[in-house]
Amino acid sequence: MRQGLTRREMAGAVAGALLPEGLPGQTEAREKTVHDMGGLKYTMPPKPEQIGMLIYPGMTALDLVGPQQVFGYMMATVHTFWKTKDAVTTDTGLTLTPSRTFEDCPEPLDLLFVPGGGSGAIALMKDRAVLEYLAAKAKTATWVTSVCSGSLILAAAGLLRGYRATSHWAVRDVLPEFGATAVNARVVEDRNRVTGAGITSGIDFALRLAGKLRGDDYARGLELTLEYDPQPPFGGGSPAKAAARVLQAMSQMYAPLNAAARAVAAEARKAQP
Amino acid sequence: MRQGLTRREMAGAVAGALLPEGLPGQTEAREKTVHDMGGLKYTMPPKPEQIGMLIYPGMTALDLVGPQQVFGYMMATVHTFWKTKDAVTTDTGLTLTPSRTFEDCPEPLDLLFVPGGGSGAIALMKDRAVLEYLAAKAKTATWVTSVCSGSLILAAAGLLRGYRATSHWAVRDVLPEFGATAVNARVVEDRNRVTGAGITSGIDFALRLAGKLRGDDYARGLELTLEYDPQPPFGGGSPAKAAARVLQAMSQMYAPLNAAARAVAAEARKAQP
Repeated sequence: MRQGLTRREMAGAVAGALLPEGLPGQTEAREKTVHDMGGLKYTMPPKPEQIGMLIYPGMTALDLVGPQQVFGYMMATVHTFWKTKDAVTTDTGLTLTPSRTFEDCPEPLDLLFVPGGGSGAIALMKDRAVLEYLAAKAKTATWVTSVCSGSLILAAAGLLRGYRATSHWAVRDVLPEFGATAVNARVVEDRNRVTGAGITSGIDFALRLAGKLRGDDYARGLELTLEYDPQPPFGGGSPAKAAARVLQAMSQMYAPLNAAARAVAAEARKAQP
Repeated sequence: MRQGLTRREMAGAVAGALLPEGLPGQTEAREKTVHDMGGLKYTMPPKPEQIGMLIYPGMTALDLVGPQQVFGYMMATVHTFWKTKDAVTTDTGLTLTPSRTFEDCPEPLDLLFVPGGGSGAIALMKDRAVLEYLAAKAKTATWVTSVCSGSLILAAAGLLRGYRATSHWAVRDVLPEFGATAVNARVVEDRNRVTGAGITSGIDFALRLAGKLRGDDYARGLELTLEYDPQPPFGGGSPAKAAARVLQAMSQMYAPLNAAARAVAAEARKAQP
C-alpha cells in the first residue's frame, strides 16, 4: 500500500503551518522540530536524513526491502549504492538498480545499511574495495547498520570489533571470529551500531529505528501502515521455536555458508601483520 | 540470507538419487514427486512452477518482495512482468526491472500475483489494457493471487466477483463495490483465489502457498530460513490492536485513497451496459 506521497503531502502541509512560528532561528533550525500528523506528534530533522543502502549481486532482496519501505515512508532520502549503476540480480533473481555509486553516494550519511546474502555476502567479505569503502563511510555515518549476514560484511570491514551484534541464526556464531560479541536477539543496538537477525528481522529493525528518528508514535503509525500484525503459519521461525528435524535440515543446508564465513575470518587473521 | 543455490543443489542431488526409481512412467511423471532435504520430505512438480508477478510504477516493493523471496527459495521460476522492460520506480523510490513483458510472460502461469500500491494501484484499476491482460491471464492460471491493494486491481479486472477476499485494512471495505466479499483476515483463500492483507502480510501469504505447493515441512524450513519470528516493536499492526489515536490518524491519511478506489468502482458500474 503506497502512502508515501499522501503522508509527505500531509506532513508537508503540517510542517508548513508549524514552521514559521516553530523555527526560532537559524542556529536552532538545526535541531529537530515537532510536527503533527492527524494528532500523532513526531519529530523531523531540518533536512531529511540521507540513508545509504548497499546493494550487490547475490544479495537477499527482502533484507533490504523491509527497511527500505520503512525508511521511504519515513520521508528520509534513501539511496541505494554499488560500485556501478549497473543493475544487480538478487539471490532469487530480482533485478534492482542502484541510484548511486561509491563515488557519488552522499557524505556524510545519517544511516549506512548493509543487507545480507549467501555466496554474494561471502564475496563481499573478501572484497577489499568494498570493505575499505564501508569502513570509510562508517566513520562519518551517524548509524552503522545491517540485517542478516550483512553484519558479517560489517564485521569483515572491522566495524563490529568490540561491539555486540546479531546476524542470521545460521552464521551468528561467526561474529566473534571478527572480534564482535554475538547476541541472540532479533535487533541488537550497541552505541551507533544496530544489527538485525535473519531476513524478515529487517522490518522489526527498521520500525525500531523509525521510533528513534521520528518518535514512537510515528513508528506506531508505520507499523499499522505496514499492517505488521504477523501470523507466522508454523510458529517455528527461530532455532528455539523450530521443530528439531527442521532445524537439523536447515543447519545442514547452511553449514557450507557458515564454514565459508569462518574461512574468510581465518584468512583475514593470517593477513594481519 | 541467500540459500537458493545451496538448496537447489541439495534438492537437485536428492532428486537425482530418487527419480530413477521414483518415476514409474511418462504419464505419472506429470504428478508431483516426493523428495528429501536433510530429512524434510517435500513435493515437487515435474517442472518448476511458472510464477508471474506484476510490477508497475508506484507499486509497494515490500508487497512483492516478501512473496518473491519465498517463491524464489522454493525453486519456482519467478517472472516479473510489466508492459515494457523499462525499469519501474516503487512508491519509495526503489528501481525494479521486469524480466518479462505482457507479450512474453509465460502462458499458462501456475501462479499470477498482483502487488498493491497507492496512487499506482488506483491508476491500474482504471487501465483497461492491464485489466484485460490480467483477466485473460487469470483464466489459465492455477492460482490468482494478490497482496495489499493488489486485490483491488484483481477486483477491478472482475476477478474477485463472488469471491471472499482481503486487502489492506484501509481499503478492504471497497472490495464489495466490485462484487467481492471482504474478509477481515491476514490471508484469505477462496477456491483458487488467495489474497493477503496489507504489505507485510505477503510473507504469511507466501509461506501458506509454499505449504500447499511443497508441503508443510518445506514451508517450515522456509519460515526458519527467513527467520520469521517477528517481534513487532509496538504490537499495533492491525486496526483491532492499534491505539485509537494511531488508527484515527492513519485512517485519515488513507481516506483519499479509499475514496479514489470507490470512485473507480462507481465509474466502472456506470460504464456497464
